[in-house]
Amino acid sequence: MKNFSFYSPTIIKFGKGSIEKLPKLVEGNYKKILLHYGGGSIKKNGIYDDAIDQLKKTGVEVFELGGVKPNPALSMVREGIKLVKEEEIDLILAVGGGSVIDSAKAIALGALTEADIWDFFLGKERVEKALPVGVVLTIPATGSEASMGSVITNEEKNLKLAVNHDLLRPVFAIMDPEYTMSLPRDQTFAGVMDILSHIFERYFTKTENVGLTDSLAEATMKTVISNAYKLLKNPDDYNARAEIMLAGTLAHNGLLGLGREDDWSSHQLGHQLSALYGATHGVTLGIIFPAWMKYVYRENLDIFNKFAVNVFGVSAAGNTKEHVALEGIRRFEEFLKKIGLPRSLKEAGLPTNEFERMADLATSMGSFGALMKIDKDDAVSIYKLAE
Amino acid sequence: MKNFSFYSPTIIKFGKGSIEKLPKLVEGNYKKILLHYGGGSIKKNGIYDDAIDQLKKTGVEVFELGGVKPNPALSMVREGIKLVKEEEIDLILAVGGGSVIDSAKAIALGALTEADIWDFFLGKERVEKALPVGVVLTIPATGSEASMGSVITNEEKNLKLAVNHDLLRPVFAIMDPEYTMSLPRDQTFAGVMDILSHIFERYFTKTENVGLTDSLAEATMKTVISNAYKLLKNPDDYNARAEIMLAGTLAHNGLLGLGREDDWSSHQLGHQLSALYGATHGVTLGIIFPAWMKYVYRENLDIFNKFAVNVFGVSAAGNTKEHVALEGIRRFEEFLKKIGLPRSLKEAGLPTNEFERMADLATSMGSFGALMKIDKDDAVSIYKLAE
Repeated sequence: MKNFSFYSPTIIKFGKGSIEKLPKLVEGNYKKILLHYGGGSIKKNGIYDDAIDQLKKTGVEVFELGGVKPNPALSMVREGIKLVKEEEIDLILAVGGGSVIDSAKAIALGALTEADIWDFFLGKERVEKALPVGVVLTIPATGSEASMGSVITNEEKNLKLAVNHDLLRPVFAIMDPEYTMSLPRDQTFAGVMDILSHIFERYFTKTENVGLTDSLAEATMKTVISNAYKLLKNPDDYNARAEIMLAGTLAHNGLLGLGREDDWSSHQLGHQLSALYGATHGVTLGIIFPAWMKYVYRENLDIFNKFAVNVFGVSAAGNTKEHVALEGIRRFEEFLKKIGLPRSLKEAGLPTNEFERMADLATSMGSFGALMKIDKDDAVSIYKLAE
Repeated sequence: MKNFSFYSPTIIKFGKGSIEKLPKLVEGNYKKILLHYGGGSIKKNGIYDDAIDQLKKTGVEVFELGGVKPNPALSMVREGIKLVKEEEIDLILAVGGGSVIDSAKAIALGALTEADIWDFFLGKERVEKALPVGVVLTIPATGSEASMGSVITNEEKNLKLAVNHDLLRPVFAIMDPEYTMSLPRDQTFAGVMDILSHIFERYFTKTENVGLTDSLAEATMKTVISNAYKLLKNPDDYNARAEIMLAGTLAHNGLLGLGREDDWSSHQLGHQLSALYGATHGVTLGIIFPAWMKYVYRENLDIFNKFAVNVFGVSAAGNTKEHVALEGIRRFEEFLKKIGLPRSLKEAGLPTNEFERMADLATSMGSFGALMKIDKDDAVSIYKLAE
């Protein structure tokens, strides 16, 4: 186990009706709130009204900035920063999924600095302070409701980059599984893949003597997979929605990576598909991860064997480690097929003629990854495996 | 899954040499620190010197209060409160195990009130504020380093009671597995039982649809058990010490109980053995838990079956649920025997002629428990099973 630091201070209010906890969370702590949201689905499904009704019970002044799109845009972040500075807003309340939360975090960071916000994503500026962010979660997927990260897309430069800091962990997250019942099927299962990806990025490591987090990760993966199957049969299964929602938070608040070296290659490779073609984050991960696995599994046959045996029930008896590892990957792909995620770039309708350009973008800040260092050539090879 | 609230803000610095993080954690945040510790073992094993050396690098003024005993006493808490008030101390730094941390938390609570500190334990006063507590952990056991609880013994009244509040969660915990290497065998394994007990109190529930926390709990139990066996063979196994230390924190920071109804009967029954006879907390739990299990397992045969199958590898095939449940309890007892914990009150040299009195004390604030409500008669029966 590696030395580590862990800090996960987000107050989580979980379950049916937990929006009613909102007034107590803001009253007395904040005066001016920016309600930040996406394309308007929260106005159709009643979540916007719920939040406004609760906020009306408090003395806070509410400002609004809607219209965040998937792969949240730097331009919207700049707009938010301007508004927050002008109005002296002291809490950003993100009502939505990961895109809205990530946008809120970037606004919170930009609000307390004179530096250009994009410089934090380029690593040119250090995070030293940020406004608090609160969350009303509507999509279990990115884990951003309790994570330290924000991922923003610079539309002009076709770059999708992350900034990570404990100061970007939301101060509270209201998580009502009923708010996720009306999610369309494709968003539900792209979210499932996103959750799994956060576990994978931590689980597939060379770090030794991490039996506890190995088994916590396996337990979480199995839970996500078994409850995804339940949602395939019945999208209105509250309990399955609840298990997946909680798993989504634990998958990315840092818990499952304690003492381990993270990887993040597949995210880096997938981000380019979103930056260039606007592909859904979870969809890119479902395409890239199996390709990455096939490219790197020999770097640690043992962990891929554990994955196959403990998560997918592959029998190790009488089989070579190579065989067991590949069978685990095959069963993972089978799962992705069952939940309806595209199995290749072509199947997702994404271009396959720009691998060099994608690899250039992916490695624009150098090679990446931990289980295996991925350089430009590797990146091209993995994109080809995903073709 | 039940609705829940979760807040676990403790900053954890984990691993070899993490005492070096102490200056940055206190500098600028606190001016006067009370170094609170136990019987002096930290002066022999160098941990006291390590802490003092690090504190000298900062501008903080250090006061000291040593001598905390196992089952920490109310009298020492009162002494600490007096000192902290007189000197206007602003951080209690507990260097030790659960007793020292719980004593520090009670001092922190008493320091900011004019009410009598014992009234908080009696439920007559409500927790509204407390001084911050920092921890340098030397014994993995109680989980107090990140928990919301403090358990104190009123020596005059033979009462051992708890107070629970998020404000009692330590602000930071420095956790170096090397600090636990010199622990005597009996403390190591009483600690292992204590850790398991915190998982049991959450795991054995009637709450349904909690598959994620079921499997996280099972993963943690299996990790603790397998690493306890490693420490039996080699007490100097850093990695086993690290896994158990991390498991001890996760077992009691609330994570494994998310959305579940907790029980806590066995703690309530065991506390009387400590209050009356000064018995070691972990030892009392090792005696009471199997007795409680045998008394209550029919209340939820399914969870006792999961325990048997998933934690101890009992085969369910061809066996009745009753048989499987009892076989799980038997294997748990076998484990306790192997790690050298006394299997009965008699074996522990504890009196067995005061069950009525113990049961009276245990139920002095009413019946307790969730899986099964335990009244005075039940308490006597369980003590008899533990005889």
